[in-house]
Amino acid sequence: MPTFQFLPFLALLGTLGFLCVVFTGFWSQHWRGGFAWDGSAKMFNWHPVFMVAGMLVLYGAAVLVYRVPSSWVGPKLPWKLLHAALTLAAFVLVVLGLVAVFGFHNDQGIPNMYSLHSWLGLAAVLLFSCQWLMGFATFLLPWSPAWLRIIYKPVHVFFGSTILALAMAASISGINEKLFFSLTNKTVPYAKLPPEAWFANSLGMLILVFGLLVLWALAMPAWKRPESESLEARQPLLH
Amino acid sequence: MPTFQFLPFLALLGTLGFLCVVFTGFWSQHWRGGFAWDGSAKMFNWHPVFMVAGMLVLYGAAVLVYRVPSSWVGPKLPWKLLHAALTLAAFVLVVLGLVAVFGFHNDQGIPNMYSLHSWLGLAAVLLFSCQWLMGFATFLLPWSPAWLRIIYKPVHVFFGSTILALAMAASISGINEKLFFSLTNKTVPYAKLPPEAWFANSLGMLILVFGLLVLWALAMPAWKRPESESLEARQPLLH
Repeated sequence: MPTFQFLPFLALLGTLGFLCVVFTGFWSQHWRGGFAWDGSAKMFNWHPVFMVAGMLVLYGAAVLVYRVPSSWVGPKLPWKLLHAALTLAAFVLVVLGLVAVFGFHNDQGIPNMYSLHSWLGLAAVLLFSCQWLMGFATFLLPWSPAWLRIIYKPVHVFFGSTILALAMAASISGINEKLFFSLTNKTVPYAKLPPEAWFANSLGMLILVFGLLVLWALAMPAWKRPESESLEARQPLLH
Repeated sequence: MPTFQFLPFLALLGTLGFLCVVFTGFWSQHWRGGFAWDGSAKMFNWHPVFMVAGMLVLYGAAVLVYRVPSSWVGPKLPWKLLHAALTLAAFVLVVLGLVAVFGFHNDQGIPNMYSLHSWLGLAAVLLFSCQWLMGFATFLLPWSPAWLRIIYKPVHVFFGSTILALAMAASISGINEKLFFSLTNKTVPYAKLPPEAWFANSLGMLILVFGLLVLWALAMPAWKRPESESLEARQPLLH
């Protein structure tokens, strides 16, 4: 693969991620009546904003921490703490996003957890919780044994990408179903592609591009942290 | 990562892929009225079956051809022809799947190409067409220059995974929207989770697991075909 520089690529990802959140907020604000925290549809509107901000963008930033070249030298602990803090912040947003949708459903008497979107989303959130707790217990608690760290690390890395892929599929199906709910014969139907449909479909494509680029950056061999042995091998022993 | 054997893993993937197609067919046959080719909803029923069979399962088999260890030695041409034939067969199924949905829409006066599902699906199919034509022109036509093969190969590999990810997102959003269309107040609503909803939601999760495992198998470094130089380096020169 042609070698790209990681940091300019990260800046591109940051811009795309920022646009994903802003566009999701704009959709809710401009076409769906804005925001409130009162059990109404305005409370639901926080759901996509918190989920895109937490489960995709902040999560995407958190998983790329160890791809920053300056994380490869010097003590690893600050980078681990940054990774744990960013994922925890993402998790808090995700919980707020869940409260927004359950609060709206319960207030309006709408059943919870029936659509494929909700199953995928819940699977992503449950795996994310396990991932955070296991990561904390294994990589941050100083008394966790070395053999556990060695065995668990590839599992943690694998589920890191898997959770993001689940979040992407949940976002896409969520936008799709929200447009079918909102754009009915009472307004302009989705099938007639009003401006809101163009906008939110494009937002869905943007979210997919953002997620795929994060997954691709994670998989790029040249951007992976070299294993500590090979790093040590490169450094003179007596310096 | 613990080393898994590729061939038993491929057998697992084959089983999962087979179940994805059978369950999609069962859904259409048992709950959606079966199959016909007459512009009715029974014609639409071919759409999910052809798409899951072509764009996911056969496509998944085709992209894993070069991970079969016996493809790494001996002449490469038969494996290239197998890869081209499997992707072409997948493409034919995908075209039939498109004919099934456009035929149904046009016959019933339903607009085409408005939902996010359709945008994603069309993006996957268009990229797949370009990918097949470019792959044919670059890797099969004997007069294509070596520099083009070298430059294009990583692009082809990257889009191979990307197209599968798009197909997964399209399948998930497609199942989700089909359940909202079909399970309305005239039947048992989707929100009450009738058996059909349980079945098709589970099918969506199975499709996601299948696709993620294919993507993971593609990304596993130990299963990648060694570059030809390193293979030659391993083989005695005079044998």
